[in-house]
Amino acid sequence: MTTIALDAMGTDAHPDPDVRGAVMAASEYDLDIVLVGDEKQIRPLLDSLSADSLPIRVLHASEMLTMNDKSDELVRKARHKDAKNSMAIGIDLVKNGEADAFVSAGNTGATMVTSLFRLGRLKGINRPALAPVFPTANGSCVVLDVGANPDCKPRNLVEFAIMGSVYAEKVRGVSNPKVGIISNGEEAGKGSELVRETYPLLEGSGLNFYGNIEGKDLIDGKVDVAVTDGFTGNVMLKSSEAVAKLIAKKLKELIMNGNLLVKIGGLLVKPALGAMKSLLDPNDVGAAPLLGVNGLVFVGHGSSDAIAVKNAIRVAKEAVEADVLTSIREALEKKS
Amino acid sequence: MTTIALDAMGTDAHPDPDVRGAVMAASEYDLDIVLVGDEKQIRPLLDSLSADSLPIRVLHASEMLTMNDKSDELVRKARHKDAKNSMAIGIDLVKNGEADAFVSAGNTGATMVTSLFRLGRLKGINRPALAPVFPTANGSCVVLDVGANPDCKPRNLVEFAIMGSVYAEKVRGVSNPKVGIISNGEEAGKGSELVRETYPLLEGSGLNFYGNIEGKDLIDGKVDVAVTDGFTGNVMLKSSEAVAKLIAKKLKELIMNGNLLVKIGGLLVKPALGAMKSLLDPNDVGAAPLLGVNGLVFVGHGSSDAIAVKNAIRVAKEAVEADVLTSIREALEKKS
Repeated sequence: MTTIALDAMGTDAHPDPDVRGAVMAASEYDLDIVLVGDEKQIRPLLDSLSADSLPIRVLHASEMLTMNDKSDELVRKARHKDAKNSMAIGIDLVKNGEADAFVSAGNTGATMVTSLFRLGRLKGINRPALAPVFPTANGSCVVLDVGANPDCKPRNLVEFAIMGSVYAEKVRGVSNPKVGIISNGEEAGKGSELVRETYPLLEGSGLNFYGNIEGKDLIDGKVDVAVTDGFTGNVMLKSSEAVAKLIAKKLKELIMNGNLLVKIGGLLVKPALGAMKSLLDPNDVGAAPLLGVNGLVFVGHGSSDAIAVKNAIRVAKEAVEADVLTSIREALEKKS
Repeated sequence: MTTIALDAMGTDAHPDPDVRGAVMAASEYDLDIVLVGDEKQIRPLLDSLSADSLPIRVLHASEMLTMNDKSDELVRKARHKDAKNSMAIGIDLVKNGEADAFVSAGNTGATMVTSLFRLGRLKGINRPALAPVFPTANGSCVVLDVGANPDCKPRNLVEFAIMGSVYAEKVRGVSNPKVGIISNGEEAGKGSELVRETYPLLEGSGLNFYGNIEGKDLIDGKVDVAVTDGFTGNVMLKSSEAVAKLIAKKLKELIMNGNLLVKIGGLLVKPALGAMKSLLDPNDVGAAPLLGVNGLVFVGHGSSDAIAVKNAIRVAKEAVEADVLTSIREALEKKS
């Protein structure tokens, strides 16, 4: 049976969405869940949700990491042998084999640092990467890195490509995934120094390398995996999300400020707008894997609601059951 | 009287949208236009549009630069003393004082290279930058660079900030414009090496420096000017445009595939969708200035229609009349 450790103190509105999401996941899917966090807050919630019969266990953590934990202080808390925070305790469950994956909607940087110190890196990986799935015109694309590494070297991007390919194939079900490198022009030879140096390495990597892709090619769905440095990936992810939100907001305003017929039209198209929203909603994908650490860790949005937490748990379960970590290890060994 | 030189061979469907756009601009605004391109194609079009009485002159150019012109061959054509292509001839009009600005919807790279070789750089500018205006939640933001320079140094970004500030103030009418640097986190200290090195320089620049901004802050309209390297800017611009297009397409599909009521609703909200489109449409802004060359040059989308060409001409006219180049020169002198 798959066991998922969930940071009950993850979301901005913790522990409510986290605990509710865990209850939904435990009801719908075949898995065990360990809720890690402040027992005094978690227990009453679980009781109110009549979750007694579900395979959910609570593991008390007296502390939690927040957005205020950073720099040296964060590193100290992340690596402390007897750390009492919910991330460290949850990640230790993965390290000790008591859980198959850890999921948190908390501080992304804190999750990455804690994972790195407590789990270590996979052999052959220099830099772990955060690998969310972008919605595209015809499906989805795994993009990495989106923030773990603002400055990258060519070898990092090759490692990202290997890990992303395995993830797309094993977890997303894409056979022989096409890998692109994000650039400011499609032609070979275009790009920053980093892109131009990485290009020949990817050509010779044995992966299904598509070549350079522009932002629009990514959204149009030309590749299944897109690699980039964490700075570019992060800016791209956040601006894309913001554009989508801005459009939704402006459209709503235009409809509300329209004449009566436009307003009636707005009511009638509501189902389409709803379907639209869920297509673009990062909550729908649930969580992004942190690939390259020696254990399965998933990071969700701080703004996640219970459904997003449930989806995050589902994504983690799928990765566990696809045994993606073993496949990544094998791919890295083959390369070296 | 302001004189604008327009590349009549610029748009993908040249010379039709270019010539029509010129006719619209010459009818609506108080300016002279020089159409540079193949006279045999331009004349009949002008005649068919009964443009005889308008202040439009045709300057024949027997050649044109296309997307196929690149690398060494492009440089040769860009710098050739007796170049016969419409870009070189149009830009020479600016150089010789016969036109106040040049506008082209052709190959962006070719326009940049030709401008650089024929006009040279402004004193104090190491790298010119392409500076489009992004629509934001509460107005717009000048973003530079979006493609002229894939790899930048801190001093380049400071130059971009100075030029962008002047442009926002003089042409966009923003007093004391707020300048942000695009990063993967809002806090000072976050960012790539380039961002971290540029930050203190911007703090000490005398500009109204806001600090780091994320992609979402840009879209939310937190600053009036955003600086970044041309690689990140280009990826951000193209992915944002692609996301907006994807949303419009998916929404249309959802409405078309909806039940009868949804379809009727779709017809009723059409005015709102139209207003939406023009809010996000890059055609509406018309063209982006190439700042830092010794003359005013504007670059439009290849997909521009006649209205976009007209808007591009209007934007160029506004920059001429605001005497933005003199203000940029003064700002650079003050800094040095």
